[in-house]
Amino acid sequence: MKNDEIAKLFRFEPGTTIRSLPTRWAGLDDARKHRKDAVKRIARLQEKLFADNRFALLLIFQGMDAAGKDSTIKKVTTGVNPAGFETHSFKAPTYEHNDHNFLWRHWRLMPAKGHIGIFNRSYYEEVLVVRVHPELVLNQQLANRTVNDAFWAQRYRDFTAMEEHLCTNGVVVLKFFLNVSKDEQRKRLLARLDEPAKHWKFNPRDVDEREHWDEYQAAFQDAIDNTHTQYAPWYVIPADDKTVMQAIVAGVIADTLEKLPLEYPAPDPSEMALFERAKLLLLATQDENPVDDEDDEDDFDNSED
Amino acid sequence: MKNDEIAKLFRFEPGTTIRSLPTRWAGLDDARKHRKDAVKRIARLQEKLFADNRFALLLIFQGMDAAGKDSTIKKVTTGVNPAGFETHSFKAPTYEHNDHNFLWRHWRLMPAKGHIGIFNRSYYEEVLVVRVHPELVLNQQLANRTVNDAFWAQRYRDFTAMEEHLCTNGVVVLKFFLNVSKDEQRKRLLARLDEPAKHWKFNPRDVDEREHWDEYQAAFQDAIDNTHTQYAPWYVIPADDKTVMQAIVAGVIADTLEKLPLEYPAPDPSEMALFERAKLLLLATQDENPVDDEDDEDDFDNSED
Repeated sequence: MKNDEIAKLFRFEPGTTIRSLPTRWAGLDDARKHRKDAVKRIARLQEKLFADNRFALLLIFQGMDAAGKDSTIKKVTTGVNPAGFETHSFKAPTYEHNDHNFLWRHWRLMPAKGHIGIFNRSYYEEVLVVRVHPELVLNQQLANRTVNDAFWAQRYRDFTAMEEHLCTNGVVVLKFFLNVSKDEQRKRLLARLDEPAKHWKFNPRDVDEREHWDEYQAAFQDAIDNTHTQYAPWYVIPADDKTVMQAIVAGVIADTLEKLPLEYPAPDPSEMALFERAKLLLLATQDENPVDDEDDEDDFDNSED
Repeated sequence: MKNDEIAKLFRFEPGTTIRSLPTRWAGLDDARKHRKDAVKRIARLQEKLFADNRFALLLIFQGMDAAGKDSTIKKVTTGVNPAGFETHSFKAPTYEHNDHNFLWRHWRLMPAKGHIGIFNRSYYEEVLVVRVHPELVLNQQLANRTVNDAFWAQRYRDFTAMEEHLCTNGVVVLKFFLNVSKDEQRKRLLARLDEPAKHWKFNPRDVDEREHWDEYQAAFQDAIDNTHTQYAPWYVIPADDKTVMQAIVAGVIADTLEKLPLEYPAPDPSEMALFERAKLLLLATQDENPVDDEDDEDDFDNSED
């Protein structure tokens, strides 16, 4: 199966229910190799994105607790030049955040051109956790505290308008919903409890949130239905097998970068004469030591899950 | 004439041409007194805005060079608590600004709840100076460099969507176009040349920009036509008489603050007992010196133009 066919397979189709979409997929012969190849493509293309400096990429990761957001972000950026991407994890808003319009803290962290910005959770929490727990809205010092359908619809419009602005200004937005099953989540939370080295990742509140599973799924469905656009599409990724999930996500990112009309900026013809002169100067002082300027692309360990 | 009638008179009416609107207005018996009263109202209401902490006010000032943006901002904030407002002047974008979506530098400076944010020029320059000089767009490292009607329409949509988001999150937006005549501008620029103490305000490029007067007026007209909304209305203010202009602007701001449902937050009933206790403690240690906690509202000199 070709890369772009896989991407198409997991791109959200308006009208489908996420409940009907698979949480596990066996369509890849060698998920590990697929992931490795895709991550290498991302690393190569990121350099071109950086040199071109007209586009940015914003990657949004959403999913239930233990869906694999952190590990997926870690895997798909392995070997990518850290000067060219930033990851931001959005937790409960602080006093300063609540003192501004709720998009303010996300606005400030939008990626610069040439960069990849990664949001681990995002403004979508403003229609997810806050929707399941509408009492949290009261912390936001809102003028209008009438939390009804129109309230959420306004937030969806805010998102799609902002994403349209970003896209038409060169910031390509990709949104991933990591679709984990309730049973797989249970296993992962239990694993965190069983391994002392994973205790720090365990939050007792995650188990309480499990009780709201169906409400979260409904909130995800409504958010995805209302914010899936040509400018900022949603991808619903089967998340029960982490290697497969990471392979698909990395592939979608690499494909997206590949389709951008990226170009290494050509030096000005007037500068070319300076290039020639520089080369002559450097050659005149040539020494005997070999050049060490290789990218050790295979240096990173991509074998662990 | 009542305050709100004045405000209504200068609120932009869809379908009108700014060319047909007055640059001078003689409707105020005592413009200086009107201005002073309005500025006092702003100072009083700002305190309540600050205490209430659910709303913010964003004031946008646009106009031709020498229209009086700086002096109006100075006058309408005289005596307002500086802890409660910030003024930002937007000049040509820097390298860092151009490396982001063009709204990014404005996003970051949106006022916090309880505050008044003042933009001396604003994102509207992105459809004004840039529209008259479309070659400036090339500095913005845009992915799409096709600068046509759809390009400007997209920017208008970006503005109105952002302003709707702000408004529905408590940030009230007022936009002032200071409508100066070409002849009055000529006089003011000449005055800057004649007075050594005003030389620093004179920019020889302002005279070049005068050559583009009609193009700027057309750009203002199109921008106002397309971004005047219930969420973020435009006011077209006659600017040839500075005192009158400042009186009208201050009145519109005061009226807007007055209409907000601002409330001093009431202490929790459980806290009231602590208030009583605190009072008893303070009374027990009463000393003889008189209290000096008055607002010297008339301390500021509001007589200069």
